[in-house]
Amino acid sequence: MKRVAILGSSGSIGTQALEVIRANPDKFRAEVLTVNGSADVLIEQALEFIPRAVVISDQEKYNQVKQVLANTSIEVLAGEDALVEIVQLDSVDIVLTALVGYAGLKPTIAAIKAHKNIALANKETLVVGGDLITELAKLHKVDILPVDSEHSAIFQCLVGEEHNPIEKIILTASGGPFLGKEREDLLAVTKTQALKHPNWTMGAKITIDSASLMNKGLEVIEAKWLFNLDINQIEVVVHPQSIIHSLVQFQDGSIKAQLGLPDMKLPIQYALAYPQRIKNDFPRFSFDNFNNLTFKSPDTKTFRNLALAFEAMNRGGNCPCVINAANEVVVDAFLKDRIGFLQMSDVIEACMEKVTYVSKPCYEDYVQTDREARKMAGELITL
Amino acid sequence: MKRVAILGSSGSIGTQALEVIRANPDKFRAEVLTVNGSADVLIEQALEFIPRAVVISDQEKYNQVKQVLANTSIEVLAGEDALVEIVQLDSVDIVLTALVGYAGLKPTIAAIKAHKNIALANKETLVVGGDLITELAKLHKVDILPVDSEHSAIFQCLVGEEHNPIEKIILTASGGPFLGKEREDLLAVTKTQALKHPNWTMGAKITIDSASLMNKGLEVIEAKWLFNLDINQIEVVVHPQSIIHSLVQFQDGSIKAQLGLPDMKLPIQYALAYPQRIKNDFPRFSFDNFNNLTFKSPDTKTFRNLALAFEAMNRGGNCPCVINAANEVVVDAFLKDRIGFLQMSDVIEACMEKVTYVSKPCYEDYVQTDREARKMAGELITL
Repeated sequence: MKRVAILGSSGSIGTQALEVIRANPDKFRAEVLTVNGSADVLIEQALEFIPRAVVISDQEKYNQVKQVLANTSIEVLAGEDALVEIVQLDSVDIVLTALVGYAGLKPTIAAIKAHKNIALANKETLVVGGDLITELAKLHKVDILPVDSEHSAIFQCLVGEEHNPIEKIILTASGGPFLGKEREDLLAVTKTQALKHPNWTMGAKITIDSASLMNKGLEVIEAKWLFNLDINQIEVVVHPQSIIHSLVQFQDGSIKAQLGLPDMKLPIQYALAYPQRIKNDFPRFSFDNFNNLTFKSPDTKTFRNLALAFEAMNRGGNCPCVINAANEVVVDAFLKDRIGFLQMSDVIEACMEKVTYVSKPCYEDYVQTDREARKMAGELITL
Repeated sequence: MKRVAILGSSGSIGTQALEVIRANPDKFRAEVLTVNGSADVLIEQALEFIPRAVVISDQEKYNQVKQVLANTSIEVLAGEDALVEIVQLDSVDIVLTALVGYAGLKPTIAAIKAHKNIALANKETLVVGGDLITELAKLHKVDILPVDSEHSAIFQCLVGEEHNPIEKIILTASGGPFLGKEREDLLAVTKTQALKHPNWTMGAKITIDSASLMNKGLEVIEAKWLFNLDINQIEVVVHPQSIIHSLVQFQDGSIKAQLGLPDMKLPIQYALAYPQRIKNDFPRFSFDNFNNLTFKSPDTKTFRNLALAFEAMNRGGNCPCVINAANEVVVDAFLKDRIGFLQMSDVIEACMEKVTYVSKPCYEDYVQTDREARKMAGELITL
């Protein structure tokens, strides 16, 4: 029985993780559930799964949650700091970090220090502080099990190949809803259009990131840290059907790939159950329905975020932290109709140039960089 | 240093195995080389690699080989029985069975009994006596490492997944030179047309088998034994580009595939070096050159051999041995212009009906079945 703490249980990954747990009561227990502000969802989940503890980050909603759960055994906590405490509980075996953005960094560090394995659905944690996180994980002998479908694919392909060096990896990208468009086509696209992902159903932030290819850019950086790669060992190919989830090429030239229907429940289940694969009734892939798999190079002239992410990885230091922070701000602004689709890259690039560069950042530097980049992005948007 | 005995060193697999050995003198040594009748090739190879021993199966060419190699340290043997002796040499670590057809059975059994790992390029051995061979391999704790590109693909995908049950495998088939043809198109095709494989350069027998889909049929039976599968766990999909070499679906629905350019040197090297992957300069696959991978169901009405192989596997017993023997006879007859392309299936099917069925054959039953099926196929051709 693995006892799971789900950080971000009301989101897309969180609710699907609970589906996996619900289907496997003999294998998993939801030990901790946390949400940002969705008190109603949290209450409903808590009453079904009876976790040991729940956290509502939004302090103002504490009383609402506490009241409903008063007659249960469930401990109710509130505030951001409670996340850091709760992941350290003795009764937690694995922490699924399914919260959005930079907010994942602090509780992830705390969980690793408490020797908890991490099922990582919060790629921003590795984008921002990949060196810090991977070093800590090594030190505390903790597994970081990727939940992103692309990284899960690569992780699955590497099972049993630990002794065989990687020549390169190829991350596949659906291309998002704007695949094939030119820059002039994107001048006036709306958030409604950007939120219509062709293959995956996901949260709003990652869906916009997919439309702008920033998601793939962040995944490139995530992959660098997860699999200890150089920048020239990572390629991206656009594969609109989202069937091949990613590929690894070994030093003998042999390539392994992981495939399947686009369904996040599989990588979630894999990360929670690793190294076991649990029998399930998820819909199966068939070549009858996909008799043509296509591939093309990404258009980084139109979708500049991908090129910016490679550039940030190349510069290193706190630069990936800058693009992550700036990106969180511009995506929020785009979702609020405050800036256009193409402006997002412009603001991110300007932040990359202007935020103070730190070559070997420590945790405090990341906190400072994140704050500075957000402020600058905000100012650039208001201009 | 692994010392390799290559049975069938003058053939396509044999010569490519020697290329691998030549490129890795620190890792492999050609300890034994054997050929059927190609004395000149054997002499040339022996003078380059200086193996401990060579075998020429054709007794009449013994003197020719012996004379040239007289002043070397190389032991020269002749005759079919010499194969059985030579694989048992103490100094042999692994036996690459790269000879063609039924002839592989006897030396493979001898090698397994002498505790030698087998790099299996002779699929007919498993088709004919899969139960016998896999049982012996288990008993003597011997690895059977597939060299066929499809089975190597599956084997590579299973590395590190030994504890995870297979839901099914999907063997890919190029479809051969006659892909898309109807029966009436095949009435008058010649051996020259059949020998033009679109993707792979291989020996004559396997190339005809590829054109008739019998090769895929034999591979289905080979896969059953190698991976301990039921008939309903094996599917075949036509994939004309021959880039995805085969796929495994696990019980969680996740699919793993192995990909690359069609190049037999990779699976040969993998089988010899397993579990290591050796760095090499084989040409690399790129999606730039293959931006469209296509898949369709095999046409078993036109290419009946594939259906016959499934039927033989279903009947079990000595039935796969029957189709293998009948197939060897009809392919030889087709290559000698004695029968037409479509007649090959007719003869094989008639043999399946007429040869005495044995439900639990021992080695002697296989010898008898092979003899009876060859005789019957020969008679049906002469009619």
